[in-house]
Amino acid sequence: MRIAVDAMGGDHAPRELVAGAVDAARKDSALEITLVGREADIQSELDQLGEIPASISIVHATEVISMEDKPVEALKKRPDSSILRALGLVAAGEADAVIAAGSTGAAVAAATMCLKRLPGVRRPGIAVPFPARNEKGVAILVDAGANPNCRPHHLMQYAVMGSNYFQSVWGVEKPRVGLVSIGEEETKGTSLTQEAAVKIRATDVNYVGNVEGRGLFGGDIEVAVADGFVGNIILKAAEGVAELLLGRVKKVVGENDPKTFLSIAKSFDYANFGGAPLLGVDGTVIVCHGRSDRRAISNAILVAARAVAGHVNEHIVAGLAGNE
Amino acid sequence: MRIAVDAMGGDHAPRELVAGAVDAARKDSALEITLVGREADIQSELDQLGEIPASISIVHATEVISMEDKPVEALKKRPDSSILRALGLVAAGEADAVIAAGSTGAAVAAATMCLKRLPGVRRPGIAVPFPARNEKGVAILVDAGANPNCRPHHLMQYAVMGSNYFQSVWGVEKPRVGLVSIGEEETKGTSLTQEAAVKIRATDVNYVGNVEGRGLFGGDIEVAVADGFVGNIILKAAEGVAELLLGRVKKVVGENDPKTFLSIAKSFDYANFGGAPLLGVDGTVIVCHGRSDRRAISNAILVAARAVAGHVNEHIVAGLAGNE
Repeated sequence: MRIAVDAMGGDHAPRELVAGAVDAARKDSALEITLVGREADIQSELDQLGEIPASISIVHATEVISMEDKPVEALKKRPDSSILRALGLVAAGEADAVIAAGSTGAAVAAATMCLKRLPGVRRPGIAVPFPARNEKGVAILVDAGANPNCRPHHLMQYAVMGSNYFQSVWGVEKPRVGLVSIGEEETKGTSLTQEAAVKIRATDVNYVGNVEGRGLFGGDIEVAVADGFVGNIILKAAEGVAELLLGRVKKVVGENDPKTFLSIAKSFDYANFGGAPLLGVDGTVIVCHGRSDRRAISNAILVAARAVAGHVNEHIVAGLAGNE
Repeated sequence: MRIAVDAMGGDHAPRELVAGAVDAARKDSALEITLVGREADIQSELDQLGEIPASISIVHATEVISMEDKPVEALKKRPDSSILRALGLVAAGEADAVIAAGSTGAAVAAATMCLKRLPGVRRPGIAVPFPARNEKGVAILVDAGANPNCRPHHLMQYAVMGSNYFQSVWGVEKPRVGLVSIGEEETKGTSLTQEAAVKIRATDVNYVGNVEGRGLFGGDIEVAVADGFVGNIILKAAEGVAELLLGRVKKVVGENDPKTFLSIAKSFDYANFGGAPLLGVDGTVIVCHGRSDRRAISNAILVAARAVAGHVNEHIVAGLAGNE
């Protein structure tokens, strides 16, 4: 299993990217990890981490795309950027997956460009894992922002792709799929959700109908489907509420009992969930939060390995047959 | 100040509605409160509450619209329902405001029917208050679900109405108004938000541009504008996350230290914020959570009184001049 890590992407690059990669390589000796980016910078981080597993290597890339850059423009101007080089390894068959913690817009644009879409896929979508009160303690939301202007057909494909991804990575047979809407009755919502509902019902995913915010986090589903505008807003709002609430908990609990506070805060840390796959491209691309620390990166690498080992993309292509 | 309470609406009607009304009447002797609904049921609740202020009266209504009813259909079939009778008091000039904790769909449909829209208003919108880390500790989101299929012009009017409401009730001059979108740059979002941004910028509200989920709860704005589909989803998602997190806090903190847990939970209780006005109708209508208890109802009555005393609707009509 060969994983390419864009070592220059993210708020704490290259340090946390390099440390996360070394951690994952130590945990799983079957992984071969390639750190892509400025060789000298990466090497100087490696030098501080003790004995480095032989399964870690470096591919030099001179350029970096930052969060401030306009994605498509920057990709054109910087062909030797770390994200393009990392994806190029997958395109050339020299890596199985890419970990990208830099600009999400650039990663999505670069992946769609370098890897092409899987047969039948209309639009790739990002599947973000989040804590939920279901059996596995986790659910995914597709799309989290790759495709803000969705058509009903795209939502249907997100249902199929999300279902196959969840099944492959979390081992749940026929995960429950819900369509994010207002009200539980199918007549509620917009024309987009109403038309999408008809299309999803015609697939063979385990569709449970509309899901509202409380059901999302309450554990009514494993896979939530939304357009990229709504999906992105939900996830950012969830983050905002959690920060507000944890801030209050910290104030009230944290001073007397920091250990208890940390145990609560940690159970909501996105780092537990290990990054979000860009579903629908011909390759495995895991998009990580810009703020990812080494633990988040290490988990993302392990999730990428599970996605590759689980043949997620083959299942997606098979699942989309008849639903192109 | 005369407030009509639909005593039959909500999960805990009529008990909590009656108790909340009595509580508000005891707190503010300037209020005259009319309980609308089945007289015998209301009287039997009053009989259990000790001495009842003379400012409390009952208007009998024989019918009730439940959460399960289809709003428009039910309103036609039950002209003597408590919600229609309560709104009728406002339409007839016999009350200044209505408190409605029953079906939100029925309350919105009934209010639009009985009270008509304010001059210039295209679509009424619900303004839900929520906790935020700004100076007042509270922000509002318009629309929370009255109008799921919004046009740019509606969003612009929500900005103007929300700004005037917030200023009147919370006394903040020129509250900051944000448009819920993805990304902070104005080029992000959908064609709906992009066109709305241009229109809002042309009004004289204190428009600060796009706001994302973290800014909403983090305190970047006082007034958030979204279409009713997105707005409703955000609020339900926020509720879902808060429940999930508080469930975890309760488990870890609550058993050893129930007092601390309660102090955290209470600061996030919607009951603190006293209901959500339906902005844009010619009258004051406060929509409450179906689960409202007496404290929530009492607070909603006090908010209604502040809205009437603050001449919110006159400010809205003035604010919309030129933005019809």
